[in-house]
Amino acid sequence: MFRQPHLLGIEPLHPLEITEILDLADTYAESARAGERPHRPLQGLTQVNMFFENSTRTQASFEIAGKRLGADVMSMAMQTSSVKKGETLIDTAMTLNAMRPDLLVVRHPQSGAVDLLAQKVDCAVLNAGDGRHEHPTQALLDALTIRREKGRLHRLTIAICGDIAHSRVARSNLILLGKMENRVRLVGPPTLMPAGVADLGVEVTDDMEEGLRDADVVMMLRLQRERMDGAFIPSEREYYHRFGLDAAKLTHAKPDAIVMHPGPMNRGVEIDGTLADDINRSVIQEQVEMGVAVRMAAMELLARNRAG
Amino acid sequence: MFRQPHLLGIEPLHPLEITEILDLADTYAESARAGERPHRPLQGLTQVNMFFENSTRTQASFEIAGKRLGADVMSMAMQTSSVKKGETLIDTAMTLNAMRPDLLVVRHPQSGAVDLLAQKVDCAVLNAGDGRHEHPTQALLDALTIRREKGRLHRLTIAICGDIAHSRVARSNLILLGKMENRVRLVGPPTLMPAGVADLGVEVTDDMEEGLRDADVVMMLRLQRERMDGAFIPSEREYYHRFGLDAAKLTHAKPDAIVMHPGPMNRGVEIDGTLADDINRSVIQEQVEMGVAVRMAAMELLARNRAG
Amino acid sequence: MFRQPHLLGIEPLHPLEITEILDLADTYAESARAGERPHRPLQGLTQVNMFFENSTRTQASFEIAGKRLGADVMSMAMQTSSVKKGETLIDTAMTLNAMRPDLLVVRHPQSGAVDLLAQKVDCAVLNAGDGRHEHPTQALLDALTIRREKGRLHRLTIAICGDIAHSRVARSNLILLGKMENRVRLVGPPTLMPAGVADLGVEVTDDMEEGLRDADVVMMLRLQRERMDGAFIPSEREYYHRFGLDAAKLTHAKPDAIVMHPGPMNRGVEIDGTLADDINRSVIQEQVEMGVAVRMAAMELLARNRAG
Repeated sequence: MFRQPHLLGIEPLHPLEITEILDLADTYAESARAGERPHRPLQGLTQVNMFFENSTRTQASFEIAGKRLGADVMSMAMQTSSVKKGETLIDTAMTLNAMRPDLLVVRHPQSGAVDLLAQKVDCAVLNAGDGRHEHPTQALLDALTIRREKGRLHRLTIAICGDIAHSRVARSNLILLGKMENRVRLVGPPTLMPAGVADLGVEVTDDMEEGLRDADVVMMLRLQRERMDGAFIPSEREYYHRFGLDAAKLTHAKPDAIVMHPGPMNRGVEIDGTLADDINRSVIQEQVEMGVAVRMAAMELLARNRAG
Repeated sequence: MFRQPHLLGIEPLHPLEITEILDLADTYAESARAGERPHRPLQGLTQVNMFFENSTRTQASFEIAGKRLGADVMSMAMQTSSVKKGETLIDTAMTLNAMRPDLLVVRHPQSGAVDLLAQKVDCAVLNAGDGRHEHPTQALLDALTIRREKGRLHRLTIAICGDIAHSRVARSNLILLGKMENRVRLVGPPTLMPAGVADLGVEVTDDMEEGLRDADVVMMLRLQRERMDGAFIPSEREYYHRFGLDAAKLTHAKPDAIVMHPGPMNRGVEIDGTLADDINRSVIQEQVEMGVAVRMAAMELLARNRAG
Repeated sequence: MFRQPHLLGIEPLHPLEITEILDLADTYAESARAGERPHRPLQGLTQVNMFFENSTRTQASFEIAGKRLGADVMSMAMQTSSVKKGETLIDTAMTLNAMRPDLLVVRHPQSGAVDLLAQKVDCAVLNAGDGRHEHPTQALLDALTIRREKGRLHRLTIAICGDIAHSRVARSNLILLGKMENRVRLVGPPTLMPAGVADLGVEVTDDMEEGLRDADVVMMLRLQRERMDGAFIPSEREYYHRFGLDAAKLTHAKPDAIVMHPGPMNRGVEIDGTLADDINRSVIQEQVEMGVAVRMAAMELLARNRAG
């Protein structure tokens, strides 16, 4: 079923392919909880992580996922690499490609850089986040968390709140949740909404009460200050007052609504710290846990396709 | 026998638990010397090294120890991590915990930080040094070296010399050597003695001749300049003259006394370079060798307890 | 046949030893192309990479090579290590040695540093480049690439062009190609020729047309600006005009001449970008591919010698 050569985004995936990844990931998650040591389907394969942007948590998640499956994993901090010596992205990629890796995990600050790179190399490429474009494994781990908590991944009302404009997480989630026929609402200040949001076919509001009403899932986003060049940014205090999630605002959502955040969190800015730690509402730790499982599943399926 | 869930310090260990770690470590040391490739009892387990302070040698030792036992080892330089993005220590730890590691090795500049972290996570935590508090694997590797060289680990006279005040190595050694019923002397300038040293029940002196008299073991410490904020520090030349170990001062110890140093050494400050390299007196390289063996033993025992 | 304890340079190698490395490397290259997962002859052995100079590509190549053979690989960025705390190179090496690695891969900015280190440690040492001295695995991978492309490694005319003076790559290649009885020409500006070049017994010219005439192989070098202290350096534009390789200059070589570059390339300085990418002439990617194979072969042969 899953016949993709790469995992560059959610956009190219068929809903059945999404389901296949989630199903396999679910078995990995369950076997990890049972303390089982996985068989090693990637033994003898080489996984290279090329992170042109720092990301401890995503890189660690991919590294643990690959090692659990038995792959030889090499992580390269590209900031300190040949890139400094004036080599181009493509030269760097071609050099690595010549070393015959099987899986290449790439994060890059420019939208589209990972797609470009995938056209040049012979191995399977996984997009670990490119600019404001896509972050497919994040959307998949969010989807798996939702499906486990809600028992389904369709006909849910999901509020995505905060800095939509600068968020590839929001973008990939929007595409995935749409494909699976959910009702998505975007909530945030107009200055943090992407251009053309009106054409997306989703509800948009700058009012948290309206946005959260009857939501099954409340997905908070990180304020991406590092990607805001000159855009108007409210003070953190003001932002928290209007858009930060706390117990009071959460009362507008369904009584059993779950709270999500991709991390790392700014406590007291995007979300109240106590709520973030409330294991009856917050599934933030489960998201991280599902991240390893989803990456294991995606890498195994891609490796199978290459072998097949 | 060894039933600890973590290795946070020497303080909580029963003497029989110390002996059990040393016995297992001794077999690992012997099998490494015989060139045997170890079986892989940690195969399929995940070890994560979180070093919030740089330490090439300790991190390398833990990494080699884990890999020799077959663990999947991931080392994270926490200075360049999400910590920068304002995430708290506990958030970082909880995130890693959600990835379900089996062993977490932590070094942190603040005393008590590793204990705090151990309360929050589900896996076994090993303290690789926290502030001025404890550095248990260093004390264990020192103990193994002494036991191998002296044939026993009790009723020995051991002089610990130099910067006691800033040294978690001294503190862990003091506890361990006391538990095993040895006679410990602390030697150093009063400004580098910890507050309350009089209550420790050990001999204290600022005279090297007196301190080294009839010692079986002379343990030099590193001057921790990076931890001295404003304390009076003698010049290096003056310090070496009064407290640096050389052949002349060593004549006051027993003729077969061994010389130790946890490294990295400041040659010509804490110790004469020629003496440090004298394989008839110095066991500094053996300390490093035993470090890998002791860490293998500690990690294997902790993993067994989790599985059992 | 190959009985060396270390791989410190090409200088000490017998031509039959060079051939043995290349033969084994060739089988590794072929099995990688066939998608075979290698057996793991280095399983249970420890390989440590100590890079005192940054080099993403060489370090990645050694790391992938060791992991493919099943070794436990640890890479240490020595800039951020104990070296900072004032420890000497030898102390650092002795410390690592005490951890009983089996293979030590070292890059160092000073000529001779790796030889010195090899005298102090018990394990097999591989020189990954030391100052202007030697870079033996680069010469071996170049040799393997030439042998595969030309069907032989003797009686070829090889032009080595550019910054000869600062290049350990040129030096190791010159020795290897001489041992195998090839005709070598050095081409470059007199300011970038090493002192005493007249005594090397090779042809030297500052004229590309003359240097490339009837060459079977054109080997371009990287301008090592970081190693030029005060030497006269032409502008990049002027340099490219006179010494940069382009299609026009290449017409002077044999019609089937191959183009090589050790990377990373300065496109438009040492070589025309289009020519570098022309898979009919350029074997630059194959060089990188052969790098992994040659390093696998060298490490396996050294490990066999230690075991034997």
